[in-house]
Amino acid sequence: MGYNLLKGKRGIIFGALNDMSIAWKVAELAHAEGATFTLTNTPVACRMGTLNELSEKCNAEVIPADATSVEDLENVFSKSMEILGGKIDFVLHSIGMSLNVRKKRVYHDLNYSYLNKTLDISAISFHKMLQVGFKMDAISEWGSVLGLSYVAAQRTFYGYNDMSDAKALLESIARSFGYIYGREKKVRINTISQSPTITTAGSGVKGFDGLMDFSERMSPLGNASAEECANYCIAMFSDLTKKVTMQNLFHDGGFSNVGMSLRAMTQYNKSFDIDDIENLD
Amino acid sequence: MGYNLLKGKRGIIFGALNDMSIAWKVAELAHAEGATFTLTNTPVACRMGTLNELSEKCNAEVIPADATSVEDLENVFSKSMEILGGKIDFVLHSIGMSLNVRKKRVYHDLNYSYLNKTLDISAISFHKMLQVGFKMDAISEWGSVLGLSYVAAQRTFYGYNDMSDAKALLESIARSFGYIYGREKKVRINTISQSPTITTAGSGVKGFDGLMDFSERMSPLGNASAEECANYCIAMFSDLTKKVTMQNLFHDGGFSNVGMSLRAMTQYNKSFDIDDIENLD
Amino acid sequence: MGYNLLKGKRGIIFGALNDMSIAWKVAELAHAEGATFTLTNTPVACRMGTLNELSEKCNAEVIPADATSVEDLENVFSKSMEILGGKIDFVLHSIGMSLNVRKKRVYHDLNYSYLNKTLDISAISFHKMLQVGFKMDAISEWGSVLGLSYVAAQRTFYGYNDMSDAKALLESIARSFGYIYGREKKVRINTISQSPTITTAGSGVKGFDGLMDFSERMSPLGNASAEECANYCIAMFSDLTKKVTMQNLFHDGGFSNVGMSLRAMTQYNKSFDIDDIENLD
Amino acid sequence: MGYNLLKGKRGIIFGALNDMSIAWKVAELAHAEGATFTLTNTPVACRMGTLNELSEKCNAEVIPADATSVEDLENVFSKSMEILGGKIDFVLHSIGMSLNVRKKRVYHDLNYSYLNKTLDISAISFHKMLQVGFKMDAISEWGSVLGLSYVAAQRTFYGYNDMSDAKALLESIARSFGYIYGREKKVRINTISQSPTITTAGSGVKGFDGLMDFSERMSPLGNASAEECANYCIAMFSDLTKKVTMQNLFHDGGFSNVGMSLRAMTQYNKSFDIDDIENLD
Repeated sequence: MGYNLLKGKRGIIFGALNDMSIAWKVAELAHAEGATFTLTNTPVACRMGTLNELSEKCNAEVIPADATSVEDLENVFSKSMEILGGKIDFVLHSIGMSLNVRKKRVYHDLNYSYLNKTLDISAISFHKMLQVGFKMDAISEWGSVLGLSYVAAQRTFYGYNDMSDAKALLESIARSFGYIYGREKKVRINTISQSPTITTAGSGVKGFDGLMDFSERMSPLGNASAEECANYCIAMFSDLTKKVTMQNLFHDGGFSNVGMSLRAMTQYNKSFDIDDIENLD
Repeated sequence: MGYNLLKGKRGIIFGALNDMSIAWKVAELAHAEGATFTLTNTPVACRMGTLNELSEKCNAEVIPADATSVEDLENVFSKSMEILGGKIDFVLHSIGMSLNVRKKRVYHDLNYSYLNKTLDISAISFHKMLQVGFKMDAISEWGSVLGLSYVAAQRTFYGYNDMSDAKALLESIARSFGYIYGREKKVRINTISQSPTITTAGSGVKGFDGLMDFSERMSPLGNASAEECANYCIAMFSDLTKKVTMQNLFHDGGFSNVGMSLRAMTQYNKSFDIDDIENLD
Repeated sequence: MGYNLLKGKRGIIFGALNDMSIAWKVAELAHAEGATFTLTNTPVACRMGTLNELSEKCNAEVIPADATSVEDLENVFSKSMEILGGKIDFVLHSIGMSLNVRKKRVYHDLNYSYLNKTLDISAISFHKMLQVGFKMDAISEWGSVLGLSYVAAQRTFYGYNDMSDAKALLESIARSFGYIYGREKKVRINTISQSPTITTAGSGVKGFDGLMDFSERMSPLGNASAEECANYCIAMFSDLTKKVTMQNLFHDGGFSNVGMSLRAMTQYNKSFDIDDIENLD
Repeated sequence: MGYNLLKGKRGIIFGALNDMSIAWKVAELAHAEGATFTLTNTPVACRMGTLNELSEKCNAEVIPADATSVEDLENVFSKSMEILGGKIDFVLHSIGMSLNVRKKRVYHDLNYSYLNKTLDISAISFHKMLQVGFKMDAISEWGSVLGLSYVAAQRTFYGYNDMSDAKALLESIARSFGYIYGREKKVRINTISQSPTITTAGSGVKGFDGLMDFSERMSPLGNASAEECANYCIAMFSDLTKKVTMQNLFHDGGFSNVGMSLRAMTQYNKSFDIDDIENLD
């Protein structure tokens, strides 16, 4: 049960993998808010089977697609319009992957072929999705498109590697295309910059546990969970936020605007006690 | 009729004056979304009488208060809790005024006594409101507080004068207190940076018409109206946005992230034709 | 010996107190670079006597002044022009003080009379200085004015208190007046956002040692020293930077754009070892 | 004649084409400031011959290189160290090109193969240059590296097309690599965000004249010229700015922090007169 905020709205959700995914939570909530939508992920991810559970729960068809393929994206939009019976009102892009991170290539020893893949999958796919939607005139007036980002687009985080650059590119594409799509079709495009979240994607990043703890203590409201992020996405898909566009919206319990918190400093200061103990030897 | 997004929530709305005010629209929508609340404005504004209309429409009591007076603010919070039957879930601060603007003192000839008033009324009142709420423990856990700002806090606009500095201070207070109030009581504090809006307050600014036109043509979705702003406020007061805090949220049809649009440039370029015509003489 | 970067230039340096002050280092370097200038600080600070040492070293007269007094500021400018023999080419504003910090009033229990003082001394004095300079036409074309700021203007630092708001206001004034003074007289106005620095002013802030350590480990180049800051000021006063204005320039070894560094994370993670040891009991 | 700011320093300057290029002006000034350096550009650009004039004037060898080729970059660094007799102290990256712009593909009809080229030439080449320098340990401690950017990285400018995204990526790479290179080798990396400048590169952008005029009137100090930019580069290469890193530095006469100026608004408002005249018919 919900507020009927998305009643009658049609959507496409990219990137749900399992019940830890933000996209998964968005699907559940969008369903509860009265939307109909399709789900899409890579053919490999679709074959893994967990997506079927979500599909049944939300009565949402799954359309396998490689988000870097213009052809596949055209198929996603045309099938979705056919299935849902009209133009699309909201789209979630929750896609990101770095082979440099996976294969432990550090930032000063990047494999450039991997870097191209990182950018193509994590950022350029957003442009492709939008360009396909635009050319097919597949998104309704006052439609809402969201990408998921991270504060590493603004500030460097050790170990986040080339994903930082991919997120900076993603946010830039949201601005650049947000200008065009807003001007031509009244479609709004934003990114949500989310707290570090324990998902299959998030957990690949080096030193993630320490960072999660630091982020939790730095954020006055604590880290935002995947479910809380989904709630924010619903608000951004609803008619309450029609004039918000080209923005990067921090959803992070305040982290982005804290330089040093009492709780993080207190924890940090404990580290000197261990230094003292070690120096006893 | 609405979504029941604020069902059971109690609020205080500062700054409604007449039906052009953003605060007025917020009151109407909050009422439609199931909230109960009190209204407050200066004694002078309250005596003007139009606020009674809103009061009746929304079944909301009016509590006159000078928002720069700690004592008055204490009264607003204690009366509001008494009337509404519990702690406050949301607060809107829509207050701003510059005597330097009104009395046509330009920015390089400020009257410093006026400047102090500008800062006290337009920014420090936000701190006072929050400090009073905090000390009285008058705001519920996960409560939401909003102030209204303008992009002049980041970039200089000819004629906006010392209100720019007041808005920068307001946004800083939102961050500083957002950290404390979030950490201690899980209350979130944000500002909404709104398009130029035709209200009694907005219309005092020099060259406002030309700016409105420029802003409209620069913004891919056009300027945001007072009513649209109210919708965004509702979303920020609702439970969908619990982890958003210490942020300045642009609600401006994209203006803040456009450097130059086709429509504004086209209009701008026409100005050279008139130069050409004038040069014929 | 230097580069003669400020040869023939006349300046006013506000806020040198002792040889730990950034303003003191700026004076020494400006002297080495061929500038002539006056020094000014509060009458109390001037009576303390250490300033005389700097005065002799740099052959610079000391003019006592309360920087919140328009009259005193007029005297500083007129005396300085008289002594130096012409209009002023560069001004350093290195002034900041919070009674709330000194008297240990936390941010959610501010004394508002102290807050007014904080803003007046730390930020509005910058406007007064500029307005006086403007009205007296005391600053040369292509002159350069600098204020000193801290990243707390953008992000909240535990314990920095109302100085955060003062710095946000200072930076806003630099933008607002930078627009006017640039347009009318080609004078540029910027702020330098400096690493935490061990000065008499900096050392009043709570938990300063832990923060200095954290800041050092977060910054890839380490914290910037007072002397390094002085070097940057010289560059900004020189003719090499004529078109830089209305900016806040981070001089912090990279701190402002780091979200988490390897060195800070490594230190932070040690804190969990002490937690483990404590949990043994 | 100069200040001897770069006396004894060795550099590499990428991207000088003709005497309108910013890189050309940087070379001239670096020479005047006592530096020795090599020049590099694409083989095609080198064959055009004008670079020889600069080469002779500055006594600087030209090394042809495709900046997207790791091998060519290795050659540039090894040859430069050989020629100059030691490690490199400063590097300028002034490289950017979009086939989408050249071939008039609008942003909502991008050719993705062209986009990859835009990113590779205009942004990833910066990473390659840095990674090669890092692996060869070719840049001295406290060395300084600069890339040239434009405010379109932050805000959308009609017609700037995919170069906006390239500049956002470039600035992100400067931060990401600035963190690593600072931590490991004390090398600083920054971008300068320059006013629109009449160079061979700049003049390809649609509607450039109108934008130049608007930018000039918006900037209180007017647009920054290529020569002024070169001066700023010298300051950033010098020892005066050792602790500035990971920053994007606006060099634009104030443009980036102006929302609307009196001069631009006055010009804009003239456009309505022509509307009135046209409406007479």
